[in-house]
Amino acid sequence: MDVIEVSSQRRRQLVDVTTFVQEAVAASGMAEGICHVAVPHTTAAVLLNENADPSVGEHILNALAAILPAVSWRHSEGNSDAHFLSTLVGHSVTVPINAGELALGRWQAVYLLELDGPRRREIWVTCLRS
Amino acid sequence: MDVIEVSSQRRRQLVDVTTFVQEAVAASGMAEGICHVAVPHTTAAVLLNENADPSVGEHILNALAAILPAVSWRHSEGNSDAHFLSTLVGHSVTVPINAGELALGRWQAVYLLELDGPRRREIWVTCLRS
Amino acid sequence: MDVIEVSSQRRRQLVDVTTFVQEAVAASGMAEGICHVAVPHTTAAVLLNENADPSVGEHILNALAAILPAVSWRHSEGNSDAHFLSTLVGHSVTVPINAGELALGRWQAVYLLELDGPRRREIWVTCLRS
Repeated sequence: MDVIEVSSQRRRQLVDVTTFVQEAVAASGMAEGICHVAVPHTTAAVLLNENADPSVGEHILNALAAILPAVSWRHSEGNSDAHFLSTLVGHSVTVPINAGELALGRWQAVYLLELDGPRRREIWVTCLRS
Repeated sequence: MDVIEVSSQRRRQLVDVTTFVQEAVAASGMAEGICHVAVPHTTAAVLLNENADPSVGEHILNALAAILPAVSWRHSEGNSDAHFLSTLVGHSVTVPINAGELALGRWQAVYLLELDGPRRREIWVTCLRS
Repeated sequence: MDVIEVSSQRRRQLVDVTTFVQEAVAASGMAEGICHVAVPHTTAAVLLNENADPSVGEHILNALAAILPAVSWRHSEGNSDAHFLSTLVGHSVTVPINAGELALGRWQAVYLLELDGPRRREIWVTCLRS
């Protein structure tokens, strides 16, 4: 398992971690299989989305904020919204490995979704041979 | 990695791809393991849900449309709603392989969720032995 | 594939299944890999979230209920809300196995999310070596 450390600068933020994941796949030496990318956190998530137009990322962050319901968030730490959104988006993604490379679509990039930053975060990468 | 090609006919649509995935599992010859089913797209998703009552699929599509917040979607291509919903639902599912078959529950089927169609789409299937 | 049986007591409920999953990982004897935890159901889900403060789980259940749109749910069984939320949260999670143990973060626990209980449910656990 490879551990990648990244830092966020804002409360909610998308951090592109594609290059780190690609390096972990190359270091694994695997030709075919899958790559599992996870956060060991409950107020962050991992997702794939477009890397070409930066406004897509802004829209995702704005829409996540906008769907938050007006419920009472009594959790003593005041960050239950982050726990909820991490549950909706998910703590991991799995991506194929093909011909020795992370098999992303033309527009796909791997992002850490920070939901309660700024913080230092870890990403755990596990590669499996098929 | 097996590549399945499917076409959608509407902007938002569920396309049942279970049979194609079952064929990929059979062709792999694996007895026990997992099957990873992913789209290389950022405006589509993959999900499992009920295949018996067609109204369930309609409800899912209606509810996805209904939770879209009234935010500004400034992305130049005008399809940020599709990027957002693909992030919520997810670009892949993983299903066990048991006794040489895709181990779905009694009511589960595998669907491509089209969010910005009509388009031709790919589904990437990777099987791993446990 | 290990099958875990659990029961829910309420319509919507989080059931901590971490111990059962840890036991399946220990029984597999695997040192490094991934553990896939899935439900064969279309009105339940699996998620990771915090186990320390019980109010986090309550907030997640409240927020899931609050984001349900006011659409018509015509499904004859009257549980389309459960199908929709299971699609958003997802039917499975995948967690790394590291040094022979389920590699959860400090605050992470594995939960069955019941969305149409009370019922008896199954959880299917598959471990793969990396």
